[in-house]
Amino acid sequence: MEGKPLILITNDDSHTAKGIKKLVSLMMQIGDVVVISTEKVMSAQGHSITVREPLRVKLVEQREGYKEYLCTGTPVDCVKLGYQKLMDRYPDLVVSGINHGSNASANVVYSGTMAAVVEACMDGITAVGYSLDCYDADADFDHLDDYILAITRKVLREGLPKGVCLNVNFPKRCEEPIKGLRICRQAKAKWVESLIEHHDADGEPYYDLTGVFVYEDEGDDTDVWALEHNYVSLVPTGFDWTVKEQMEPMRKFETVLFEK
Amino acid sequence: MEGKPLILITNDDSHTAKGIKKLVSLMMQIGDVVVISTEKVMSAQGHSITVREPLRVKLVEQREGYKEYLCTGTPVDCVKLGYQKLMDRYPDLVVSGINHGSNASANVVYSGTMAAVVEACMDGITAVGYSLDCYDADADFDHLDDYILAITRKVLREGLPKGVCLNVNFPKRCEEPIKGLRICRQAKAKWVESLIEHHDADGEPYYDLTGVFVYEDEGDDTDVWALEHNYVSLVPTGFDWTVKEQMEPMRKFETVLFEK
Repeated sequence: MEGKPLILITNDDSHTAKGIKKLVSLMMQIGDVVVISTEKVMSAQGHSITVREPLRVKLVEQREGYKEYLCTGTPVDCVKLGYQKLMDRYPDLVVSGINHGSNASANVVYSGTMAAVVEACMDGITAVGYSLDCYDADADFDHLDDYILAITRKVLREGLPKGVCLNVNFPKRCEEPIKGLRICRQAKAKWVESLIEHHDADGEPYYDLTGVFVYEDEGDDTDVWALEHNYVSLVPTGFDWTVKEQMEPMRKFETVLFEK
Repeated sequence: MEGKPLILITNDDSHTAKGIKKLVSLMMQIGDVVVISTEKVMSAQGHSITVREPLRVKLVEQREGYKEYLCTGTPVDCVKLGYQKLMDRYPDLVVSGINHGSNASANVVYSGTMAAVVEACMDGITAVGYSLDCYDADADFDHLDDYILAITRKVLREGLPKGVCLNVNFPKRCEEPIKGLRICRQAKAKWVESLIEHHDADGEPYYDLTGVFVYEDEGDDTDVWALEHNYVSLVPTGFDWTVKEQMEPMRKFETVLFEK
């Protein structure tokens, strides 16, 4: 790579979030930065794209080595728009976050932050998502600086395997310093939602989704385990959802039409 | 299973789509049916859930063995609402579709139809998504009847492995009959979007996403290959996005803080 790397930054907590501001300040130490963030909070929008309404974007700030756009769409829209319309060339790296809240385990499936990363990965661009295991709007991100700088620099230097992006989750700040980094697998866990029923002025019901995270994994090689033990978790993440080890056992379906 | 199976049906093309009507007519031959479909078209909404506005649902039809609801949310909301609020008990099966358009290969990542299936699978419910490789609103679904009935009955009879749902795609009707069923892996391919720039009355730009599907896979064991050769593709699909074979090679990241 000649000259400074070009880094596209997005998130799903909107441009006002403390997490993206921290990420921008760190990335400015590494390269030229284009920020394309969402106007509104777009968390839990998964891999949603804007296809039935016009997608708008505006340049809100520009100076040497820095451009910032606001986009009406989702995080996936932001990265698409970025390297297909707004940027002079493909970025060397897409980073997303720092998310307010963990994207470990089942959270990754719902996450707009990680969807942007997966989208870039599908397009062959090196991409990393950073999340903090703390939902507070005013969360403390300062214990992550050295980690984010080191991981980002290594990824820029060495790239990632084809079809792989990184889902990096950080433990919430506590009294002892972070113990280190662990390559992990996505923990088996799920959100057990409980829908709260309300009634509007006309007596019509409506619902709010809320939920409890239920951990279903005994392993010490998972992202949830790492966070619980004050490690940074790094999950090599892809977009092939095939459960390959079940292909052979399921061949019995190939003759299903001839069964009783 | 005693008595008739209870089947929850959803989709992402809205309740007016020909595909869901076909699916309902087939499922009524197999069990008791609860339809919870989206009021509006919700395709390409991925695993999006409704968290920042109230989620509403109304019962629109009820008769022996049949209930139909309309939901303001996404397909994932529909299934959550279904078995957490609207149904007396968990369904024996969730089916989604029949989608107007293929959910083979990279499409699965964006698909609302398949997100509903994956959500049910995460909750431990047997789930299958059906899609037709044809986007026409008036597509012909009649060549699928025997296949959908046979696959659904087998899944109800035998279940699916834990953590696995089925992504079933059908070739568009052509002169020769379907050749058979193939257990496949998700093909490597991607959507290469081209954003079309428009300008509104004030001269402000906005964008429409459109795209071309680029096939990057030579294998004859993929879902795209199957559809192109007039086979039904069945992909055992999961929600663990870890690229496990890259965990060992990536351990070098665990010492990243001590590198120059």
